[in-house]
Amino acid sequence: MIGLAKRPKMDSTFLKQAIQVAVANVRRGGGPFGAVVTKDGAVIATGANQVTSANDPTAHAEVVAIREACKALGSFQLSGCDLYCSCEPCPMCLGAIYWARPRNVFFAASQEQASQAGFDDTFIYRQIEMRPEARSIPMLRVDDPEAGAPFAAWLAKDDRTDY
Amino acid sequence: MIGLAKRPKMDSTFLKQAIQVAVANVRRGGGPFGAVVTKDGAVIATGANQVTSANDPTAHAEVVAIREACKALGSFQLSGCDLYCSCEPCPMCLGAIYWARPRNVFFAASQEQASQAGFDDTFIYRQIEMRPEARSIPMLRVDDPEAGAPFAAWLAKDDRTDY
Repeated sequence: MIGLAKRPKMDSTFLKQAIQVAVANVRRGGGPFGAVVTKDGAVIATGANQVTSANDPTAHAEVVAIREACKALGSFQLSGCDLYCSCEPCPMCLGAIYWARPRNVFFAASQEQASQAGFDDTFIYRQIEMRPEARSIPMLRVDDPEAGAPFAAWLAKDDRTDY
Repeated sequence: MIGLAKRPKMDSTFLKQAIQVAVANVRRGGGPFGAVVTKDGAVIATGANQVTSANDPTAHAEVVAIREACKALGSFQLSGCDLYCSCEPCPMCLGAIYWARPRNVFFAASQEQASQAGFDDTFIYRQIEMRPEARSIPMLRVDDPEAGAPFAAWLAKDDRTDY
């Protein structure tokens, strides 16, 4: 049994709920993704993909669930929370997860299953690894003498809220 | 002059505006980041970091600007738009950029400058490259017989909006 102790505890009920949110969302005309945030064994937020229904390319299920959970908690951190996703998160959602800092993430479908349904994140994963100027969407750093001004203002502020 | 033709056209006025949005946001108690979306030579949306002010870890300047621009256009795509950022985008924002698909991205401050002000994205970039189960926030795939159900529902839907 040694080693099992480190495996995070998950509750398959919540994973099934994330999958159900995804299926219900397709019926409503949304994308096939759902997510659930739990704390202390209870659901505090759910999220369904709203990209096309809300004209918001950032409204992936995980992002929606994270935003709703933070609203419910009145915090920009999901300390002690678990995130259940119907599918493996994309790079944007992965980034959002690192900024929100839940305790664990559990997901059902794999990247491969998503890819077979027409949702291929591989391209974005590859792009992130590249130098900005080499990416398919050109990303160029432009010299500006004021580039450091926001950080200077930030560091000079005594009452700032670090995050 | 050969080669210069491929360099995307940028307007330093908009980059300066993104920097000004960032500086003004610090004065209001927000994070030191700003972004501007332009189309056909005009600003259609701006965004300032609202992580702590809105309790939303996903409210980075770029994400806010992308959401506002999509709202203004009534579209989930930023075709033909340019995104100007006060600083190089983090992995979450990079993902959001790939989903929104603007034409070009221009940024002023580098990752190094951000890091010196306490905003280090390097950790997240490294985490994304790792296998899910090896990451610092445990991400575990869990077998569920219904894992493929959302995609099956999606593919069976004749009137779906692909994105």
